Amino acid sequence: MSIIKKAVVLSSGGIDSTTAMAIAKQEGFSIYSLSFNYGQRHSFELESARRVAAFFKVEEHMILDIDLRKIGGSSLTAEIDVPKKRPAQEMTQGIPVTYVPARNTIFLSYALGWAEVLECGDIFIGVTAVDYSGYPDCRPEYIEAFEKMANLATKAGVENRTRLKIHTPLIQMTKSEIIRCGSELGVDYSMTHSCYDPSPEGYACGSCDSCLFRKKGFTEAGIPDPTEYK
Amino acid sequence: MSIIKKAVVLSSGGIDSTTAMAIAKQEGFSIYSLSFNYGQRHSFELESARRVAAFFKVEEHMILDIDLRKIGGSSLTAEIDVPKKRPAQEMTQGIPVTYVPARNTIFLSYALGWAEVLECGDIFIGVTAVDYSGYPDCRPEYIEAFEKMANLATKAGVENRTRLKIHTPLIQMTKSEIIRCGSELGVDYSMTHSCYDPSPEGYACGSCDSCLFRKKGFTEAGIPDPTEYK
Repeated sequence: MSIIKKAVVLSSGGIDSTTAMAIAKQEGFSIYSLSFNYGQRHSFELESARRVAAFFKVEEHMILDIDLRKIGGSSLTAEIDVPKKRPAQEMTQGIPVTYVPARNTIFLSYALGWAEVLECGDIFIGVTAVDYSGYPDCRPEYIEAFEKMANLATKAGVENRTRLKIHTPLIQMTKSEIIRCGSELGVDYSMTHSCYDPSPEGYACGSCDSCLFRKKGFTEAGIPDPTEYK
Repeated sequence: MSIIKKAVVLSSGGIDSTTAMAIAKQEGFSIYSLSFNYGQRHSFELESARRVAAFFKVEEHMILDIDLRKIGGSSLTAEIDVPKKRPAQEMTQGIPVTYVPARNTIFLSYALGWAEVLECGDIFIGVTAVDYSGYPDCRPEYIEAFEKMANLATKAGVENRTRLKIHTPLIQMTKSEIIRCGSELGVDYSMTHSCYDPSPEGYACGSCDSCLFRKKGFTEAGIPDPTEYK
């Protein structure tokens, strides 16, 4: 008898979370993907997340409405301009205005709640600490501390039934390594979305930090970028 | 010049969080209270939280809509019966069906995000590990692990500007000690709400775990219970 292992996979519809999902799938997990409608300024992320969920034939794709806009503090949820055409050096220094306070902590907390209900001990998150654009909640020491806390937070943890593991398969990969890895696993990146500031029709701007990292990643991977930039 | 210290205080409108707020106020913090509309089966909790916010003249009372009902797994958010008239011994053993998976983790994560935006290093939560009704996320070791994670999660933490502290002033108090403490600080407990299963008019049932703990607390404190039970 084969035992089906479940995993909750955080999915933003971008390159990283989609590659993390491909890895979870390859490792034999049955996938429960989790996305958030958190007051992003556009809905293309969620459309991509839906395409990705369909592509990987997930068991369930849950989209939770959450209210980060009220808290504010980020150009992704408030009326602060997204910076454009920044030099590479500047993009990797300091914490950008696109940082959303406590976002990964909030996302992982919901994943933890759902994992507990599903009786699942595995959560995948596509954070990377290498092409690190300055987000504190993408660092390995943060993820380790979250995992430790999570194992004290839950019924399963207390009763010692399930040991929860936060998988970060991309944490030591550059963007080009991620793209190469996903391509080998058959990911079609045309279904993914990266741009922080797309046109009303959904075309990527090509000049925000996220587009610049994406372009650079495809170039360095030697793989054609399927994105249509406006 | 006096420096005004800000604190985010989690407020459910119940005895514990209201007492925690009274303590934060007495310690000189200016209060930002945070409540959640999380698909509780009734809205009396939020009405109480609003009364409490007005009573303490908080700087701001934020109510966030969050979607715990979709995740399920609890009698407080799903269609599972709330247990009634359980013997005291049974109430303090195991984890009850009123447990909401990862609830305190999710609540504290939002508090962390708001604290970061407010540039505030103090969060109060009214958890207690003594009259402990079996919730894993009320234990001191859980709170310590959350605090450690939180200090790695944020911009302020990384830049070493603010050291975040999770205050749990009630963690070693029994319900009667909490009620005595709050009464000495002038809390009017008639504005608070504890019942898991109130009547449509808002009267407490008097027989769920939460009502039973509340009644016992007032009796042991030797203070009249202002609650009208149906």
